[in-house]
Amino acid sequence: MSYLGVGISPGNVPVYHGTQAKVIDRRVRLLELVLRFVICGLGILSSVLVATDTQVKEIFLVQKKAKYTDMKALVFLVIANGLAAGYSLLQGVRCIVSMVKGNVLFNKQLAWVIFSGDQIMAYLTAAAVAAAAQSAVLAKFGQDNLQWMKICDLYGKFCNQVGEGVACALLVSLSFVVLASISAFSLFRLYGGGESGQDGSTW
Amino acid sequence: MSYLGVGISPGNVPVYHGTQAKVIDRRVRLLELVLRFVICGLGILSSVLVATDTQVKEIFLVQKKAKYTDMKALVFLVIANGLAAGYSLLQGVRCIVSMVKGNVLFNKQLAWVIFSGDQIMAYLTAAAVAAAAQSAVLAKFGQDNLQWMKICDLYGKFCNQVGEGVACALLVSLSFVVLASISAFSLFRLYGGGESGQDGSTW
Repeated sequence: MSYLGVGISPGNVPVYHGTQAKVIDRRVRLLELVLRFVICGLGILSSVLVATDTQVKEIFLVQKKAKYTDMKALVFLVIANGLAAGYSLLQGVRCIVSMVKGNVLFNKQLAWVIFSGDQIMAYLTAAAVAAAAQSAVLAKFGQDNLQWMKICDLYGKFCNQVGEGVACALLVSLSFVVLASISAFSLFRLYGGGESGQDGSTW
Repeated sequence: MSYLGVGISPGNVPVYHGTQAKVIDRRVRLLELVLRFVICGLGILSSVLVATDTQVKEIFLVQKKAKYTDMKALVFLVIANGLAAGYSLLQGVRCIVSMVKGNVLFNKQLAWVIFSGDQIMAYLTAAAVAAAAQSAVLAKFGQDNLQWMKICDLYGKFCNQVGEGVACALLVSLSFVVLASISAFSLFRLYGGGESGQDGSTW
């Protein structure tokens, strides 16, 4: 109950009960593990969908090929999702090792490393999705006043597959937002303690 | 010393000393206040720079006017930075009130609201900067294979001013990243406590 912060009296930060804490710890750890492997899978899927996407069209007897390297934002998306998948795989293995062994140390230094890594990946994947989405909007609708023409009318199949890749990347990014909060929780609760609660610190 | 997490023994989370904690609390609070007003100022500056930016060119006797509404990403940037400035002003006032009064309650519900708001604004401003930067790269370098022409050769002054606006927005976004970490710290340390440390919980 108190863990959810409902009806907490300020200046009287509760020390939540050990058994309850362990149950919630286990759930958080499990959620972290699931999210890391979801990110790994979706990151690879997103990268593969975008990087393997090509379409050839014949325009006035000239063959033109659309590929992801035509747009820098898509290259950025492929790299960011590749990094996200690799990073999450490593972190996922760490989660499993710590769960199996049950005695892996959880200290502040390790918590800071995980927190920093998750923060960087959360903002990196969010930026990659935003840039790719902006490119996708331009490709879909064009920008008449700048004479940037729509290209999705011409390369429909290519655009659809990119759209699927961006959708997977969005899920990767949202998962990282949750993970970044989990690792912030894991780190900063180490800085809690009797005194900051007991002295009723006011902010 | 222990606050920095250097040489902490796991399973033995320290309760940092009251006086030291108060000094660090004050510094964190001051940093938060400064960042909120920096964001407010830079957010307004960024929005004004981009929204007031226009340039008229005569092309084959036809007058053409470049303005920020020509690109959706710039409209998104103006809105995101306007929101960031307004939100930060409100939060800055809250910070001042709590510092002056010295007895404003700091409870978990308020901490959750601030944490959520800062998280949303951090990702929103990061996404806005990424989308605007992607548009800026297209405007500067064009995309030959898509026949999207460079527009900065034509509208040099317009592009420079947009560049300044995006630079301010980048500082707003980076400030929000730090603020989001501060509010995560303020929230999640409320969940720390004797038991989770005393039972040597392993992750």
